[in-house]
Amino acid sequence: MTNSVTNPATSPVTKPAAQPLAKIVIFGVGLIGGSFALALKKQRAVTQVVGLDRSPAALQRALQLGLIDVAGNDLSSALVGADLVLIAAPVAQTEHILRELYPHLGAQTIVTDAGSTKSDVVDAARRALADKVHQFVPAHPIAGREVNGPDAALAGLYNGKKLVITPLPENSRDTVQFVSDLWQRCGAIPHLLSPAQHDLVFAAVSHLPHLLAYALVDQITGQPDAELRFQFAASGFRDFTRIAGSSPEMWRDISLANRDALLLELSHYQIQLERIAGALKQRDGDQLLALFSNAQNARIRWNHSIEAAEKPVREGGD
Amino acid sequence: MTNSVTNPATSPVTKPAAQPLAKIVIFGVGLIGGSFALALKKQRAVTQVVGLDRSPAALQRALQLGLIDVAGNDLSSALVGADLVLIAAPVAQTEHILRELYPHLGAQTIVTDAGSTKSDVVDAARRALADKVHQFVPAHPIAGREVNGPDAALAGLYNGKKLVITPLPENSRDTVQFVSDLWQRCGAIPHLLSPAQHDLVFAAVSHLPHLLAYALVDQITGQPDAELRFQFAASGFRDFTRIAGSSPEMWRDISLANRDALLLELSHYQIQLERIAGALKQRDGDQLLALFSNAQNARIRWNHSIEAAEKPVREGGD
Repeated sequence: MTNSVTNPATSPVTKPAAQPLAKIVIFGVGLIGGSFALALKKQRAVTQVVGLDRSPAALQRALQLGLIDVAGNDLSSALVGADLVLIAAPVAQTEHILRELYPHLGAQTIVTDAGSTKSDVVDAARRALADKVHQFVPAHPIAGREVNGPDAALAGLYNGKKLVITPLPENSRDTVQFVSDLWQRCGAIPHLLSPAQHDLVFAAVSHLPHLLAYALVDQITGQPDAELRFQFAASGFRDFTRIAGSSPEMWRDISLANRDALLLELSHYQIQLERIAGALKQRDGDQLLALFSNAQNARIRWNHSIEAAEKPVREGGD
Repeated sequence: MTNSVTNPATSPVTKPAAQPLAKIVIFGVGLIGGSFALALKKQRAVTQVVGLDRSPAALQRALQLGLIDVAGNDLSSALVGADLVLIAAPVAQTEHILRELYPHLGAQTIVTDAGSTKSDVVDAARRALADKVHQFVPAHPIAGREVNGPDAALAGLYNGKKLVITPLPENSRDTVQFVSDLWQRCGAIPHLLSPAQHDLVFAAVSHLPHLLAYALVDQITGQPDAELRFQFAASGFRDFTRIAGSSPEMWRDISLANRDALLLELSHYQIQLERIAGALKQRDGDQLLALFSNAQNARIRWNHSIEAAEKPVREGGD
């Protein structure tokens, strides 16, 4: 058992930056990148935001909305004098983007990402950035919305939300602090985990639930009376399956990127279902009651602890 | 495939009752029974509501709150002149309550229930009511809250919510219509299913999801790093596991009462997870994408169809 006070691995990193940065570059000007840019601009934490995106339409829209100041086209000039590069593109593109960055990456520029998996991103960064990998700080903001793209960006998206940084041994303390500070300016609450810890934790509390929700909805569609079943689905079904409305491409990529941890969690879950099926077959009400009660207690404790949880840091600390 | 227009099995029953009833009796004056009583009183659809409950405190509270007019103690006198008895107690108590009712049940009194499972309730009713079983109309209002007891009762709980009636062959058309009318006065939208249809549908869209949510939360509690995992659980986890906060006793009873249908759905789900684990092991992104996309499409369609769904009937029809 660990907690954020006694375990240094999860201690929040403090001391937000006070001086505005000259320039940041955002790869992917959608919900995640756009909200980061908006929040920093609102905090007057940056002078110029340069956007880059595979979609010219998204880039123009981000410019119109004021998420970015400049729609970049030339990578080399975009990176000149940049303090920070944020990669907020689908996680499967990270290695390609880092390879493109590499030749233009100055010694003073820090690179970070927002990917939902970390071990694979770290591997990709080592391959792509080689001798410059110490300039890359892997991170994952725990925030999202049901909608995507530049129009979905919100200055307050990260307000009070957790940010996980999984530092590399090669990162200097100042480099990690720099990234942590910027996210804190966006209202996020930084935590440190190892990449492997991160991936196991999120396999259990995020990736597996997504997979289970997709699996349930897909199962119902395959039944001859599917329409009747959907007709009587109510609020429990609505909440349980909300995450099955998420982007299939994104979750395919996350599932593959975090395959080992996800397979481990899934195998434990399959054993759970075997136990429950066994209890049902034997009409073992006591075993069902014990399991349901344990889960209910934990769910109630969790709900209370998150309701009383960390508050946003909007105006900076000391 | 069926739908509520072309399939008579799911056609809404119409024509709400216009005359106030002299007396109804509610077994179980909590959320479900109390809300039914409140809604009918608000509609001036009943002159007197008599409450019965295993808990004297609940009964006194229901009286204080005006959910009921009389706190009954003698079953025999409570049933004299009753137009309707609603059993809104845990489903496992239904048979016992029906057996207690039997000797006092006049020929003009209709009995109905609000249980979440129906095949087992029908079996219980046949055993307990024998020659009077035609007076029993099995029903299930699809409504609930996270809180229980008399204080949780709301006059609007059933407003726009579905009510499933699973009539017996022994029920007269008028008897079924009478129960349907009363629920419509509460704002509910009646549908007809067979008990077996009901139980399969709700095993798939309600009972299995509850079991899956309990299973996930219980699994996390069993890990050495449980606290770390809960610490990083976010909104996806919150929605997916909301139903794991439900009453363990209630869901043990429902799981056992609908055991056969639930085991069938669970076995299909276990096969789904085998397929998904196989796709992950083989890094088969196409198979994952196809399954996730199918689920996402169905979830989005469902969400649109329920948003455009039936509207509440509050002021009665013709």
